[in-house]
Amino acid sequence: MNNFVFFPATKYVFGRGVENKVAAELSAFGMKKPLIVYGKGSVVRSGLLSRVRKSLEDAGIPYAELSGVQPNPVDSKVYEGIDIAKREGVDSVLAVGGGSAIDTAKAIAAAIPYDGDFWDFYCGKARVEKALPVGVVLTIPAAGSEGSGNTVITRLDGLHKLGMGSDVLRPRFALMNPELTMTLPPYQTAAGITDMFAHIMERYFTNTPDVEITDRVAEGVMKAIINEAPKVIADPADYNARANIMWSGTLAHNGVCSGGREEDWATHGLEHELSAVYDVTHGAGLAVMFPAWMTYAMQTNPGKIAQFARRVFDIEEADDAKAAALGIEALKKFLTSIGMPVTMRQLGIENPDTALLAGKVTENKGEEFGNYIKVNREVAEKIYNLAR
Amino acid sequence: MNNFVFFPATKYVFGRGVENKVAAELSAFGMKKPLIVYGKGSVVRSGLLSRVRKSLEDAGIPYAELSGVQPNPVDSKVYEGIDIAKREGVDSVLAVGGGSAIDTAKAIAAAIPYDGDFWDFYCGKARVEKALPVGVVLTIPAAGSEGSGNTVITRLDGLHKLGMGSDVLRPRFALMNPELTMTLPPYQTAAGITDMFAHIMERYFTNTPDVEITDRVAEGVMKAIINEAPKVIADPADYNARANIMWSGTLAHNGVCSGGREEDWATHGLEHELSAVYDVTHGAGLAVMFPAWMTYAMQTNPGKIAQFARRVFDIEEADDAKAAALGIEALKKFLTSIGMPVTMRQLGIENPDTALLAGKVTENKGEEFGNYIKVNREVAEKIYNLAR
Repeated sequence: MNNFVFFPATKYVFGRGVENKVAAELSAFGMKKPLIVYGKGSVVRSGLLSRVRKSLEDAGIPYAELSGVQPNPVDSKVYEGIDIAKREGVDSVLAVGGGSAIDTAKAIAAAIPYDGDFWDFYCGKARVEKALPVGVVLTIPAAGSEGSGNTVITRLDGLHKLGMGSDVLRPRFALMNPELTMTLPPYQTAAGITDMFAHIMERYFTNTPDVEITDRVAEGVMKAIINEAPKVIADPADYNARANIMWSGTLAHNGVCSGGREEDWATHGLEHELSAVYDVTHGAGLAVMFPAWMTYAMQTNPGKIAQFARRVFDIEEADDAKAAALGIEALKKFLTSIGMPVTMRQLGIENPDTALLAGKVTENKGEEFGNYIKVNREVAEKIYNLAR
Repeated sequence: MNNFVFFPATKYVFGRGVENKVAAELSAFGMKKPLIVYGKGSVVRSGLLSRVRKSLEDAGIPYAELSGVQPNPVDSKVYEGIDIAKREGVDSVLAVGGGSAIDTAKAIAAAIPYDGDFWDFYCGKARVEKALPVGVVLTIPAAGSEGSGNTVITRLDGLHKLGMGSDVLRPRFALMNPELTMTLPPYQTAAGITDMFAHIMERYFTNTPDVEITDRVAEGVMKAIINEAPKVIADPADYNARANIMWSGTLAHNGVCSGGREEDWATHGLEHELSAVYDVTHGAGLAVMFPAWMTYAMQTNPGKIAQFARRVFDIEEADDAKAAALGIEALKKFLTSIGMPVTMRQLGIENPDTALLAGKVTENKGEEFGNYIKVNREVAEKIYNLAR
């Protein structure tokens, strides 16, 4: 097991009606004038935004607003938010929505105390040392951004989608009411489930030996997702299944599945190019890319994929290569059962430019990236081709 | 799933040599003059205390000291610490040791900003709202106190052992070097393993339905402990096994296995009386009391014990009552294999005064306590008799 630092630090308030505590939690964390960051869809339509505004007004908490954040959130919206934040003199950021709103909120929170361009953090020129405090009212269980210090932003001008992270960006609080997720369309629910499952696999597939405790926790979260996902797909209003899925999404990404192990994250890099070039839903892109990456990886390194097959999908097969192959099939079957694509064709990409994708991913992630197996431009193209 | 609040908040710094960061972490959390709280045994003999002192002196951090904390820590030591803390004007508390040092540190930390008697918190007269910040250098993986807001203190005058908790008592940081645990004697190692396993079971055995995610995480931590425990018993210097066990002890008790479920804690109550009356090691007492509690509980409520048998010990048995019984046997076998007693006789108590114990536990815990099954005086006496 490797040395590690784990500093979770987010206060999770979970259950029915917890969004009504937003003013109280802002005050508890000394957030006196937040910038509310949100999208333009369900948060507005459902009346949630109006309720949040009213809560703040009733409590005498002034606020500014940044609206219109989109999936695969872009830098232009971050710059817009920075301008508003500076003009209005906010002291904190409150995301109301899912990963896109939260990731945009974190980018703004990091940018305000920083002299340079916020993009410096994403392209690796600078590290976040300070940030405005961030709060969250979560409506989409998927990205896990409510419990992580990570944020991913897409650059409009160059089709680059890059991530960065710092413990100072972990939200101070996250209000998580599973009822707010009941109106998510089935496809978005399934894409969110795939995203959280992928967050665990990025940590799980490691060459670090002797990490039994985090292996077992990760396997437990994956097993819970496999058990609960069909229930939310079958009945979107199943509160308990929604609750189990929502909390799984947080545990998948807040670091509980991480301690002491090298992580991989090649597949997220590969998928980010798909999202950037073809504007696909992140979770759906992961459903396509993960089985392809595993299929390539098992050729040279089947061990952990075989363990995954045996412990997560209960596959009884002594041979590692055979077990790994059966595990990948079981994963595809699970993803298909909740309505996810597992090929680019099913994703609507008939003629993917795999050379372009492979070029872009090495440009963004480096000539060689990933840890469980090393991915270079040639390997990336092979994996993209396996995903056709 | 029930509503819940989960506010972990502790910064865990884990791995080889991390105790050398003590001055840096104290400074990072604004702790300018700590009271160092420790026992009188291995922490002194191993030279760890000297190294901690020197780290602070090198960094120009003044400190006071409270020494001689014993297992099953007592109120008189807390009062002594409060006097020293007030006299020396410390602003924080640094525990160097295991659960006893940490629990004493938390009691002192809670007492300083409070006008009344610190025991008010333990007997339920008052709730902790403020406390001095607490830091930890952990040497015994067992109590999980390094990642929890809980503390248990024994009252000398009346043989009462009571616990209380508050998120403000969660340590700000915990420095966790598995190497520091290698000199623990096998019995103490095994008792610690039993304690952490029991912390999970107290949460696991619940009547709250639809808690798949925390069930699965709890099962994962228990499986990891079952896998790693024989390794540390076989080779006390096995770093990776020590590391897996140490981190399991934290995850067992920091709340990751808790969210959204009613917890039980009857067995801890039953064991506390054993410790208070017969001065047995807490973990060894739990090894005796848990199988006895389960044996009683399965008579009327076998469901979750059967799930435990099937998922944690891989018992294939369709009938709940039979599966539960097999699970209890498997647990006893595991505990015996690591050198723990599973009866009072094996614990050295030949003629337990079960009526006295049952009277004391209802006096301390209330006429009826526990949740998975309700335990009153009569039931308590039956469980104590099952543990003979």
